[in-house]
Amino acid sequence: MQSYPQPLAKLIAELSKLPGVGGKTAQRLAFYILSMPDAEALSIADAITSAKRELKYCSVCGNLTDIDPCAICADPSRDKSIVCVVETPKDVVAIERMKEYKGLYHVLHGVIAPMSGIGPEDINVSSLLVRLRESDEAAEVIVATNPNIEGEATAMYLAKLIKPSGIKVSRIAHGVPVGGDLEYTDDVTLAKAMEGRREL
Amino acid sequence: MQSYPQPLAKLIAELSKLPGVGGKTAQRLAFYILSMPDAEALSIADAITSAKRELKYCSVCGNLTDIDPCAICADPSRDKSIVCVVETPKDVVAIERMKEYKGLYHVLHGVIAPMSGIGPEDINVSSLLVRLRESDEAAEVIVATNPNIEGEATAMYLAKLIKPSGIKVSRIAHGVPVGGDLEYTDDVTLAKAMEGRREL
Repeated sequence: MQSYPQPLAKLIAELSKLPGVGGKTAQRLAFYILSMPDAEALSIADAITSAKRELKYCSVCGNLTDIDPCAICADPSRDKSIVCVVETPKDVVAIERMKEYKGLYHVLHGVIAPMSGIGPEDINVSSLLVRLRESDEAAEVIVATNPNIEGEATAMYLAKLIKPSGIKVSRIAHGVPVGGDLEYTDDVTLAKAMEGRREL
Repeated sequence: MQSYPQPLAKLIAELSKLPGVGGKTAQRLAFYILSMPDAEALSIADAITSAKRELKYCSVCGNLTDIDPCAICADPSRDKSIVCVVETPKDVVAIERMKEYKGLYHVLHGVIAPMSGIGPEDINVSSLLVRLRESDEAAEVIVATNPNIEGEATAMYLAKLIKPSGIKVSRIAHGVPVGGDLEYTDDVTLAKAMEGRREL
């Protein structure tokens, strides 16, 4: 049996490693890539290479960035008295999209999930505590983890940890549907949730 | 508004050029690629680069290959008296998969479709005619284009063109698919199946 030539078989195999891409889809994508002009196809390859090479985590807030500290941390116009704690860099983009929040961020890269064996030491919590301790300006921490059990538990944990230092800890309001996902929340709902935050 | 860092935004934009990949999917794929070990992610990029660089069309049959002529055309054990005409390289793989056909192929890269302005000169027909004329062995051409209007029209066109040279032109049989159900077979297919009946 004669199957695909080696470079094509390799491309199909590589593409099918991606999430949600099975054999048939990988084959369709591979043929599409072959049909693209050279420059366009190589530009996909370059984008993968440079994203992997240039992106790192901001040493201050943990967000994805190509310069350290990231553009938000380095922006003098942002309100340094508020730090919004989120689970992932996608959540930063979701909150930035509503164009209402002017404070800083802290990306946890996860939530406390005892069922999956993820404790506070596995996520970006200690750097948040150090950062708050060293800051003269920090007055409020808004916990914007996802509105599910793990997100709530993480919020409670952070509140218990941070409140003794005199910094106000608030939680985004339950305008966001419980069980939902921050990333897919519409801007108005997200704005309402920010506006209706309550002290823990 | 602070959105994704440039290399990430670029990767998302590049991925969303792919068919069936929208903004959200591109974002999910991009974050997945960032989460992969460096070597694995770069291996996707390499696969794209080498597929584009190494793959070309076989100068004999028009199939995708990394060596010219392709492995099928260069294989001395294949039966050079039969040429199977297909629309795409994917069809070659489909026919090879059944492990029964031992002849050669010719890939048209399309079908005649007057409604879309695709005529015989836009597909790989002239190279087929040259190839048949120069071959001493060619005795039969099996037209295995898809069983739809364009595929049938292309088959009729090829038959009219090739038969005068004395080479037999045949068409793959239409009928009820094995494992299918008579009750759910459309009228045209059923009529074709009746018409093409063979004595047992």
